[in-house]
Amino acid sequence: MKKSIFYHAGCPVCVSAEHDIIELLGSNNVEVVHFGEDTTRINEAEMAGVKSVPALVTPNGNVLHINFGASMADVKA
Amino acid sequence: MKKSIFYHAGCPVCVSAEHDIIELLGSNNVEVVHFGEDTTRINEAEMAGVKSVPALVTPNGNVLHINFGASMADVKA
Repeated sequence: MKKSIFYHAGCPVCVSAEHDIIELLGSNNVEVVHFGEDTTRINEAEMAGVKSVPALVTPNGNVLHINFGASMADVKA
Repeated sequence: MKKSIFYHAGCPVCVSAEHDIIELLGSNNVEVVHFGEDTTRINEAEMAGVKSVPALVTPNGNVLHINFGASMADVKA
């Protein structure tokens, strides 16, 4: 199965959601991208339709915005 | 494993998220509750911390609000 991608920015809401998602999906099924550690992935996430973090992009390309940690504008600030 | 519970209200955002969640977690791992079909579960969801639908309550009790379909106030209206 193609992996889901979990985008986050290290905020408390993000970290909590990351734990939940990894527990639910299994760590082998999720790639975790932390914008604070890799700003080069921000553009890719926006192209995928990510409007806020934390967000999960599913293998078929749907974006699930989970709770609300920060907008993409905040991430880039 | 204890099941997650996916609460929704039949809105387009909800149905789309339901498909994604079932695909990611497997239908055996998720109980789906549709408030339009079972209003008796609304109180239980609010007690669990659900503030909008669609939402997923994980086996350890965390609430993941996914995208945004409707507030709980809308659901009860």
